[in-house]
Amino acid sequence: MKAYRDMTRGELVELKEVLEQQYKEKMALGLKLDMSRGKPSVAQLDSIMGMMDLLDSRSDYRTEEGFDSRNYGAMDGIFEAKKLMAEIMGTTPEHVVVYGNSSLSIMYDSISRCYTHGVMEGDIPWCKLERVKWLCPVPGYDRHFAITERFGMEMILVPMKEDGPDMDLIERLVAEDDSIKGIWCVPKYSNPQGISYSDQTVKRMAALKPKAKDFRIYWDNAYAVHHLYPDAPVEILDILSECEKAGNPDLVYEFASTSKISFSGAGIAAMAASPANLKEIRDQLRIMTIGYDKINQLRHVRYFKDLKGVQEQMERHAELIRPKFEAVLEILERELGELGIGFWKKPFGGYFISFEAMEGCAKAIVKRCKDAGVIMTDAGATYPYGKDPKDTNIRIAPTFPTLEEIQKAAELFVLCVKLVSVEKLLEQK
Amino acid sequence: MKAYRDMTRGELVELKEVLEQQYKEKMALGLKLDMSRGKPSVAQLDSIMGMMDLLDSRSDYRTEEGFDSRNYGAMDGIFEAKKLMAEIMGTTPEHVVVYGNSSLSIMYDSISRCYTHGVMEGDIPWCKLERVKWLCPVPGYDRHFAITERFGMEMILVPMKEDGPDMDLIERLVAEDDSIKGIWCVPKYSNPQGISYSDQTVKRMAALKPKAKDFRIYWDNAYAVHHLYPDAPVEILDILSECEKAGNPDLVYEFASTSKISFSGAGIAAMAASPANLKEIRDQLRIMTIGYDKINQLRHVRYFKDLKGVQEQMERHAELIRPKFEAVLEILERELGELGIGFWKKPFGGYFISFEAMEGCAKAIVKRCKDAGVIMTDAGATYPYGKDPKDTNIRIAPTFPTLEEIQKAAELFVLCVKLVSVEKLLEQK
Repeated sequence: MKAYRDMTRGELVELKEVLEQQYKEKMALGLKLDMSRGKPSVAQLDSIMGMMDLLDSRSDYRTEEGFDSRNYGAMDGIFEAKKLMAEIMGTTPEHVVVYGNSSLSIMYDSISRCYTHGVMEGDIPWCKLERVKWLCPVPGYDRHFAITERFGMEMILVPMKEDGPDMDLIERLVAEDDSIKGIWCVPKYSNPQGISYSDQTVKRMAALKPKAKDFRIYWDNAYAVHHLYPDAPVEILDILSECEKAGNPDLVYEFASTSKISFSGAGIAAMAASPANLKEIRDQLRIMTIGYDKINQLRHVRYFKDLKGVQEQMERHAELIRPKFEAVLEILERELGELGIGFWKKPFGGYFISFEAMEGCAKAIVKRCKDAGVIMTDAGATYPYGKDPKDTNIRIAPTFPTLEEIQKAAELFVLCVKLVSVEKLLEQK
Repeated sequence: MKAYRDMTRGELVELKEVLEQQYKEKMALGLKLDMSRGKPSVAQLDSIMGMMDLLDSRSDYRTEEGFDSRNYGAMDGIFEAKKLMAEIMGTTPEHVVVYGNSSLSIMYDSISRCYTHGVMEGDIPWCKLERVKWLCPVPGYDRHFAITERFGMEMILVPMKEDGPDMDLIERLVAEDDSIKGIWCVPKYSNPQGISYSDQTVKRMAALKPKAKDFRIYWDNAYAVHHLYPDAPVEILDILSECEKAGNPDLVYEFASTSKISFSGAGIAAMAASPANLKEIRDQLRIMTIGYDKINQLRHVRYFKDLKGVQEQMERHAELIRPKFEAVLEILERELGELGIGFWKKPFGGYFISFEAMEGCAKAIVKRCKDAGVIMTDAGATYPYGKDPKDTNIRIAPTFPTLEEIQKAAELFVLCVKLVSVEKLLEQK
């Protein structure tokens, strides 16, 4: 096949007609598919149901420390749940607070707390500041950006590179501007690109010297154990100990949950931080709750027991979703591999494939897909304010549909990429 | 028995010696009892365990609407849970959002939202105001006051009367001062007095004409179904429909949870409000979560089915805790009934008995109890900032200990009341 850019106008016109005919045929199929959100499939959820058989009316609901998990108390989580979440994050239980079902809520609460009360006692609450800025590696996670947008922060785009965000830029920005108060990071199998931070990136992040002493790294370790190839798992350095080593123990808040390990909505979520940070966090918790759902914490610990149990579950997930990722990648490669109209990288974990279209084409491709019955994540969603400056990035979420549906959706997707690219090239000729 | 006030100095001195001897004997018992917090007893928790047998690996996790409760979505709760919580609150499901496990967290989130973003779109966020004031009926719930204290609000004391807070005072204050933004209310079986608002109080509350258009009533319907005498339940008017009738549909936020119906910590919590209020609330929810624990919502609905199921559960609770309340009341009556050194009212529901000591005696009584091994709620806790201006109120929480423990604790308590009162009277003679 010939790269589209090398085609003459005549060839493109001819090609466009063929593609339009194919698109018409696809539309006639009346597809109704959704590749928009990173949701586990029914089969993934079915694979964890044994967890629901562990606690019944005859069970002992006491924790290892003899505490009745059915009653009030244990505001920051039961110890064995701290231990489990610490193992997932690669830290120790002393660094961990276990919350309710959502790590997104912890991030929201955390930013809200800093906004209303300041990061540490004595710090100026962000609501009293003229301007708060936030670093946003892009493409990134739309729900992160939605939180910082809600709190009126000015979001600064930081390009992602092969081994994490552009650290040169980050180091320079945080050193010179004390209104920059934080950065969103998904350090492993990033959303949407599946990029994992190199050791050097983690070390440079941990060694940042921000001008704002109340700057924090929001380290959303959302895909810590979410390997597509469990035999060759990607591992990243533990940010908490790297920060300690760099003399920056308080620089980071780390987040994780079991939403994509056990149940999306009925999992457990946790935060890890330094003792000084945890003091502030507990001071807030003490006011806002008498404790989270400890029965669900206990249920998780009884089922998984430890990291090994979690890894076994994630192997079951990998079996289920790896074929879907590979099917999409195979179709991308087969249909677009030599055309020069789109780029992607094979992810080794996480929930997404990130597709880079030609400039100015992403929105049109997503619209074409939608018109033919395939919902993709909105183009732009992977950028702050929903605005992708070059209109190139499209996030593909292959986990939820069945393999057959995924294949149909991907076939339509590549057709739309071709069609929109041809139209764009014709505009330019 | 003679009222202490009618005793001569000589009689008091003699009495003091006898009481001190009795106190010494009590100390020698080495009691270790806790009457400080409104926690359900182990027997109460045991009475709900059937709920844990309803969802297992073979269950259908789809909601009535066919939605898979195990996955993401249904951000504001599954419909049948809204229906159940609406029945508990005496409103309709359209008014309800179901959250996670804690109504206290909803209240915190709600105040935090108004602080950071304003009550309604276009309202000034409270963090931008010089001063925010809050009405606090007293005695009241310490955790309410802790929230408004954390957000720096100036708390104004409003005395409780027989049928609710002093409405004359409230009407006057909210009409003249637009920095007053809210009021804490526990309208049924109030914490700690067990007072229920009369129809007139509810109607006057609903008809308030606050100068601040962003004033809200925080209606914590914590004990909606928590009757000690289920055959003669106290019922209060539905505040939401009363507000509508009064032309004030947006005036109130109502809160409830099953923390003291099912599990303390693993229950479900809800908020009820007008459509306009719910719009603001959902705008926040959309950013802060992808949804709460819907499996636990489903578990509650499958077990209780409807209000009748909840009421049956609360009858079991009443059987368990009524004897404890009656034992305390019997001891108070027997030992203090004619002495004129303390006052209390028999509660018909809720979790507490409120004791009014002689002025300046509450702290000393609680300390005496503690020294002899019985933990009471800190004197002052029922007032904002932990400061009871007359140092009279003590909250007794009889639910958690066993009946035998309660009796021992109450016997010590009345002895401490006598001893401290005699000391106080001797100071004054």
